Amino acid sequence: MTVESPGMDVPRLEMPAPGTAAGIETSELGKLAGGSGQVTVTCVDYCPDQVEIQDVGDLDAFLRLHRPAWSHVRWINVDGLDRMDIIQALAEKYGLHPLAIEDLVRTHERAKAEDFPGSDEQPGRLFIVARTIDQRDGRLHSDQISMFLGRTTLVTFQGAHPQDLDPIRQRIATPGSRLRENDASFLLYVLLDGIVDRYFPVLEGYSERLGELEEEVLERPSQSTLEQIHRVKRDLLTVRRAAWPLRELIGHLQRERHETLSSTAQTYLRDVHDHCLQIIDLIESYREIASSQAETYISVVSNKTNDIVKLLTIIGTIFIPLTFLAGVYGMNMQIPENTSPIAYPLFWAVCGIVAASMLIWFRRRGWL
Amino acid sequence: MTVESPGMDVPRLEMPAPGTAAGIETSELGKLAGGSGQVTVTCVDYCPDQVEIQDVGDLDAFLRLHRPAWSHVRWINVDGLDRMDIIQALAEKYGLHPLAIEDLVRTHERAKAEDFPGSDEQPGRLFIVARTIDQRDGRLHSDQISMFLGRTTLVTFQGAHPQDLDPIRQRIATPGSRLRENDASFLLYVLLDGIVDRYFPVLEGYSERLGELEEEVLERPSQSTLEQIHRVKRDLLTVRRAAWPLRELIGHLQRERHETLSSTAQTYLRDVHDHCLQIIDLIESYREIASSQAETYISVVSNKTNDIVKLLTIIGTIFIPLTFLAGVYGMNMQIPENTSPIAYPLFWAVCGIVAASMLIWFRRRGWL
Amino acid sequence: MTVESPGMDVPRLEMPAPGTAAGIETSELGKLAGGSGQVTVTCVDYCPDQVEIQDVGDLDAFLRLHRPAWSHVRWINVDGLDRMDIIQALAEKYGLHPLAIEDLVRTHERAKAEDFPGSDEQPGRLFIVARTIDQRDGRLHSDQISMFLGRTTLVTFQGAHPQDLDPIRQRIATPGSRLRENDASFLLYVLLDGIVDRYFPVLEGYSERLGELEEEVLERPSQSTLEQIHRVKRDLLTVRRAAWPLRELIGHLQRERHETLSSTAQTYLRDVHDHCLQIIDLIESYREIASSQAETYISVVSNKTNDIVKLLTIIGTIFIPLTFLAGVYGMNMQIPENTSPIAYPLFWAVCGIVAASMLIWFRRRGWL
Amino acid sequence: MTVESPGMDVPRLEMPAPGTAAGIETSELGKLAGGSGQVTVTCVDYCPDQVEIQDVGDLDAFLRLHRPAWSHVRWINVDGLDRMDIIQALAEKYGLHPLAIEDLVRTHERAKAEDFPGSDEQPGRLFIVARTIDQRDGRLHSDQISMFLGRTTLVTFQGAHPQDLDPIRQRIATPGSRLRENDASFLLYVLLDGIVDRYFPVLEGYSERLGELEEEVLERPSQSTLEQIHRVKRDLLTVRRAAWPLRELIGHLQRERHETLSSTAQTYLRDVHDHCLQIIDLIESYREIASSQAETYISVVSNKTNDIVKLLTIIGTIFIPLTFLAGVYGMNMQIPENTSPIAYPLFWAVCGIVAASMLIWFRRRGWL
Amino acid sequence: MTVESPGMDVPRLEMPAPGTAAGIETSELGKLAGGSGQVTVTCVDYCPDQVEIQDVGDLDAFLRLHRPAWSHVRWINVDGLDRMDIIQALAEKYGLHPLAIEDLVRTHERAKAEDFPGSDEQPGRLFIVARTIDQRDGRLHSDQISMFLGRTTLVTFQGAHPQDLDPIRQRIATPGSRLRENDASFLLYVLLDGIVDRYFPVLEGYSERLGELEEEVLERPSQSTLEQIHRVKRDLLTVRRAAWPLRELIGHLQRERHETLSSTAQTYLRDVHDHCLQIIDLIESYREIASSQAETYISVVSNKTNDIVKLLTIIGTIFIPLTFLAGVYGMNMQIPENTSPIAYPLFWAVCGIVAASMLIWFRRRGWL
Repeated sequence: MTVESPGMDVPRLEMPAPGTAAGIETSELGKLAGGSGQVTVTCVDYCPDQVEIQDVGDLDAFLRLHRPAWSHVRWINVDGLDRMDIIQALAEKYGLHPLAIEDLVRTHERAKAEDFPGSDEQPGRLFIVARTIDQRDGRLHSDQISMFLGRTTLVTFQGAHPQDLDPIRQRIATPGSRLRENDASFLLYVLLDGIVDRYFPVLEGYSERLGELEEEVLERPSQSTLEQIHRVKRDLLTVRRAAWPLRELIGHLQRERHETLSSTAQTYLRDVHDHCLQIIDLIESYREIASSQAETYISVVSNKTNDIVKLLTIIGTIFIPLTFLAGVYGMNMQIPENTSPIAYPLFWAVCGIVAASMLIWFRRRGWL
Repeated sequence: MTVESPGMDVPRLEMPAPGTAAGIETSELGKLAGGSGQVTVTCVDYCPDQVEIQDVGDLDAFLRLHRPAWSHVRWINVDGLDRMDIIQALAEKYGLHPLAIEDLVRTHERAKAEDFPGSDEQPGRLFIVARTIDQRDGRLHSDQISMFLGRTTLVTFQGAHPQDLDPIRQRIATPGSRLRENDASFLLYVLLDGIVDRYFPVLEGYSERLGELEEEVLERPSQSTLEQIHRVKRDLLTVRRAAWPLRELIGHLQRERHETLSSTAQTYLRDVHDHCLQIIDLIESYREIASSQAETYISVVSNKTNDIVKLLTIIGTIFIPLTFLAGVYGMNMQIPENTSPIAYPLFWAVCGIVAASMLIWFRRRGWL
Repeated sequence: MTVESPGMDVPRLEMPAPGTAAGIETSELGKLAGGSGQVTVTCVDYCPDQVEIQDVGDLDAFLRLHRPAWSHVRWINVDGLDRMDIIQALAEKYGLHPLAIEDLVRTHERAKAEDFPGSDEQPGRLFIVARTIDQRDGRLHSDQISMFLGRTTLVTFQGAHPQDLDPIRQRIATPGSRLRENDASFLLYVLLDGIVDRYFPVLEGYSERLGELEEEVLERPSQSTLEQIHRVKRDLLTVRRAAWPLRELIGHLQRERHETLSSTAQTYLRDVHDHCLQIIDLIESYREIASSQAETYISVVSNKTNDIVKLLTIIGTIFIPLTFLAGVYGMNMQIPENTSPIAYPLFWAVCGIVAASMLIWFRRRGWL
Repeated sequence: MTVESPGMDVPRLEMPAPGTAAGIETSELGKLAGGSGQVTVTCVDYCPDQVEIQDVGDLDAFLRLHRPAWSHVRWINVDGLDRMDIIQALAEKYGLHPLAIEDLVRTHERAKAEDFPGSDEQPGRLFIVARTIDQRDGRLHSDQISMFLGRTTLVTFQGAHPQDLDPIRQRIATPGSRLRENDASFLLYVLLDGIVDRYFPVLEGYSERLGELEEEVLERPSQSTLEQIHRVKRDLLTVRRAAWPLRELIGHLQRERHETLSSTAQTYLRDVHDHCLQIIDLIESYREIASSQAETYISVVSNKTNDIVKLLTIIGTIFIPLTFLAGVYGMNMQIPENTSPIAYPLFWAVCGIVAASMLIWFRRRGWL
Repeated sequence: MTVESPGMDVPRLEMPAPGTAAGIETSELGKLAGGSGQVTVTCVDYCPDQVEIQDVGDLDAFLRLHRPAWSHVRWINVDGLDRMDIIQALAEKYGLHPLAIEDLVRTHERAKAEDFPGSDEQPGRLFIVARTIDQRDGRLHSDQISMFLGRTTLVTFQGAHPQDLDPIRQRIATPGSRLRENDASFLLYVLLDGIVDRYFPVLEGYSERLGELEEEVLERPSQSTLEQIHRVKRDLLTVRRAAWPLRELIGHLQRERHETLSSTAQTYLRDVHDHCLQIIDLIESYREIASSQAETYISVVSNKTNDIVKLLTIIGTIFIPLTFLAGVYGMNMQIPENTSPIAYPLFWAVCGIVAASMLIWFRRRGWL
């Protein structure tokens, strides 16, 4: 599922019916209806000296093989959640917890880190849910990336709109790169870093849109301008809803000790944490700017009403008395003035004087 | 009692008169006037191998019997609070605390967990009050579910509008289900999970209503639109008032150790806690959306006033001067122009020019 | 002093002149000017088996006597603070601290609990200030109740508008009641419970008033409606200012260990704490409701302005052009049309067509 | 410096140029330009049995003398900061820290307590900055009082508008007073108590002003009313800016142990802390009241516009159609009606009927 | 990069493309494209007895030399970030962390302190990022200063608009100055003090601008006034965004122990922390003032509309009925009044009476 905040729509969550059991047992996965989307599995093994990247066609065969002895880190990435058998195979192989499997399949979780401590049979795992944001088809989308971190293994799952991870594979392939030299938790850091960095271009888009709206508010405000401002505010709310838990998650990873997290990774996660703080700073700034634009809009409209009313008042105030005067001399009574030959020019003179003194008075009040 | 937030009503609590003793002793229960509603008692005993579900007709006889030795978990559910003798019998059997009995009978408590520590005579109990929400007869209702958790026993009480618990009994009846394999605190978790999941469809209802209101605000705003927006905001306030303590309650259960809570149940309660966080996220989003709709409404109305005034101004500004001119030539003076045969066409020409230049000027100002 | 929040008044505190010494020594009490109000002293001694309630006429004689050996709890209540000699006598007898005496005499304190730890000469005391609220003469009043809790003694002081404590004495007089079986701190709990429960009827009053105001806003809004809404908001502010410290006070008593507090009393104080939370929930809800009513009021007024302006615009837009036309044919020029016999019916026809098409256009725009 | 919040002015701080060294060494003090104001130094020595109050003329001579052996507490107060040599002499004598000297000379600090811990050579000191507020010349002023507390010595500095400390000296002079019996930290408490109590009359002034403004808003609102409300709000902001750090400071002194603070003084400081809480409660209440008055003002003005527009609409709606009618019968066409002798009375009858039905319709809509 | 908040622009961050590796290895620095700006390197060595200030022309030669044995503190300052080779040389020499180098080169970080703990090979370092603010070309700019603090060394980097640090070098050159006597962390304190003090003149500028705007709002309000108020608010937001992290940073340095921070420096940092609190107080005050000015503006505009409408209403209400009357007597019917010779003076009399009574009524309502 993607939380959408498009135009008129209101965010909504699709939840299982109340009363249904939570958590998905590995054995139940097979019964779930999968989708028809393409699913790709890629595996990268590397150590400082060696690297092997393979597209996994036959997962069962692949999992039956032992990993090469030289591999320090194995990273399995699954793009697409439509093939339940693949998820099942990985869940069995790596002993994933039913609740984590459910969170992975129902892609509407808040960003979070969950610690599933190890037991005698299987080592501890860290289950991490992160959320990216994206502009697609003029709408804001938020996708989920689920990651299972073991001591030497990282398994990641992406939904229907996976991020392009080739640049990261590229960096692994580069001998001597920091990523290549470090452990699985450093790879986790690199992925989180990429996720967080994706927020910046989206925010830049809002920055540009706010710039345009600022101009529009002042120069050609219309009802639609205000709607667009509210739309931006609402989108920013969605971004904030995605960014806050992400900040907490990364702050948590950076601070707390965990058997799977190396101290190098934690030092670098501080940097990601700083970026999160900057993102939240920007979101708050943009929201304040949008609010002040909405205020300006209201004031621009009320200024326009004021101008319009002012014009009516000036016209009315000048002509209504004069019209009355013309009406008087149009009465069919015996009006002495009407017999005078200079009455007509005099009438115009009076009109001119009245109008002129009105105009002067208006100018003095600053209305003209 | 149900906290209602219907249309015009303001939430209210029915409290006992000040000065009355708090807490209801088991012995006093018999004296309380019961209602006339139907009360059903159901008992489920289960262990991984066996299960027995019975409707309890004669409670006293039932309580006199010992529970079967194979039963790992006994769950007694009471639907309806109108039979004081039933509550009394259970309170005596399970040694419930007078304050807990009062909270159970006066169904307006905030969600909370209270620990009544065990003594030599009786084991410790956890008393939990949770609140569901529901849409009935077009109004938002909030009902209370009270639960007493012992080490192997769970006693639950529901009010006049009990939830349907058959799906849960179904899951207990399924051999090998997670629920069947686990202890009483896991059953508690399943009940809380069901309660929390019920918030989602209600929120979805508000999401739809906000979608309709959004359209209404922009296309056919009326005073009633604003009233409906405020109604939704107020309802959301009620939902939040129910959800916040629930979040705290579940956060507490998930974090703190208690003799009656198994660690499996606590792991699963983390999942319910996540749902609570999502519910609160949604509520806040909806409230922000409703607020921005109210703002839009105000601006739409002021835009309409603006349009109306603009029309009056355009008509007035064009015709008031022309009417004056017509008035002038209607005066009964000696007006030289009136004798000229081309005066009349000239008059119309002047009128046309004045009107046209006005219209051009309006168009330039963007009023047309 | 009573903090009043009546209609137009702004809350005010009467404080001693700056530079005056704080705290009132027992010996100074005699010099303070007392009031002329009636002061009643009542003493209740009880243990599970026996009870004795007496109105104390001659306090000095009473204090000289030793308390009966069978008495587990002695409760001395003073209604009225006008007799300084009575306060002095009790202060000397029970060794009250000068600061506590001052707080007791100047009745404008925030609710609080202060621990005056015991020394070799005298046991520790807990000094508690609580605030009730009340509707008297159509205004909200807030009175102070000061309580000194020792291990077996409770001394309470009430101001000019004492609460009726007879129901509590009644409960003490009932053999076997929980109150009778317990210690002095349980009596303190019962008093605090009564104080907190008194907030509910007051809040119910505001709930009703908000219901009426809701109707008024929608059906016959006037400037006074808004003033009343603001009055309610301000009153709720006063209630909140009284309730918040009370909540803190009770939360503190319920949580912290103290030599004078029994664990039974603390268990029951949890219940009072829950009530405080509900009170604060209600206050916040009412304040939100009042705010949304104020918003509705503003929007109702601006809708009315809109309606009025719309009427003027419709009338003006239809008749101003027609009046111009009539003015044209009233000119004293040679107007060819004026000679035609069908000019007059034609004129009416044109007027009718113009007016009709205007009306149709208005209807299309949704103005009619 | 005094933080002023007068009418139109915006608070401002005069800071030394960036890049200048912070802190003022004792030796540098002599180089600072002093002012021309009067400076008075007073010294009070006291113990329970004896007291000596002297105006110090020749400070150097005075400091060269040893303090009398019987003196338990020595209190040196300096009114006026214009004589740098005096500050220098005291700073040398009592070993004041350069940063504290700077804070003392630049009188724009927030209230704070700073602990300069003792060393082998000199005992620890507590440096306290407090802020009073005052109404002078119709403006709100905030002055600084700096205090250095040692174990047996208190040195206080006041600026150009010193508080009158005679009442406190009076209390010291009174044998047997609590102040006389206690140590230097109790004297500090008494001074802080006096400072805090000075906030109450100032707040009372605002309470009165708000009362008057409330009336003005409802009965004769003008632009200046709103300006005054905003002025009060801004003043209250200044008071709050002074009161908050004071509350923190006193809360800190009351809670934390320090070698120079006796437990008696700390018990009494609890009382001052309560007063601070009440001050902040009052400030918040007044700010809420001022805000609701501003809202009321806006609504009163929009009601007035509404009334005005209503009048115009009523007049216009009645007379514009009638004027049209009169215009019609003033046309110079062949109008059959004009020949009828009953046309004129009929015309008036029609006018009357139209106007009357309009008025009835207006009354029905509640406009009259 | 500089975060600009100029007029209409919306703040924006230039971030590296998502997926790029974070941190810049020393070896990579050479590959980065530098700018064409001037870069100056200055080195100051000092101890209480001796000082040496040199402009470093050939950095490599300089770094190859050992520092003089007498030097207690070495401070290397780099103005300008355009020469990557210089940054590289210093990074290698002092073993700077890749993440710190990146933060130093990309100058858009929030103020922060990062601890890179020492290892066997190299001592611990504190990396500090601070932000100054400045008014340049009528816009608010915020520049970054990056500082690396070792035990005896401070390396500082400034961007394209470096602060003038000569006053500080001057103070170092002065024998016996506090700065000269202390260690490297005291120099850090002096730099931070200078940075914080630079906020005051900028805030003073806003204070003046708000003073002018206050006058403008009341005397000649225009749409541009409101825009300027919003601009000031937005600028203050930018200042706050810079000041808050600075406050946190300094609060952190002042509180936490670190091997490179002397206790003297920490004592003096308390003073800088106080200044930060004052800055934030001022920012909040100015923001409140700007908000109240925006409110005043709205109310001034709505008062003006009110005045304008009032004039129209007065004119309309007086003349519309009279115009109707004139129209009546202009009808071509048989109007008895028209034959009377006193009709005309009578008509004027009626007009005068109607107008006069209207005016009296208006005055009574307070409209004139």
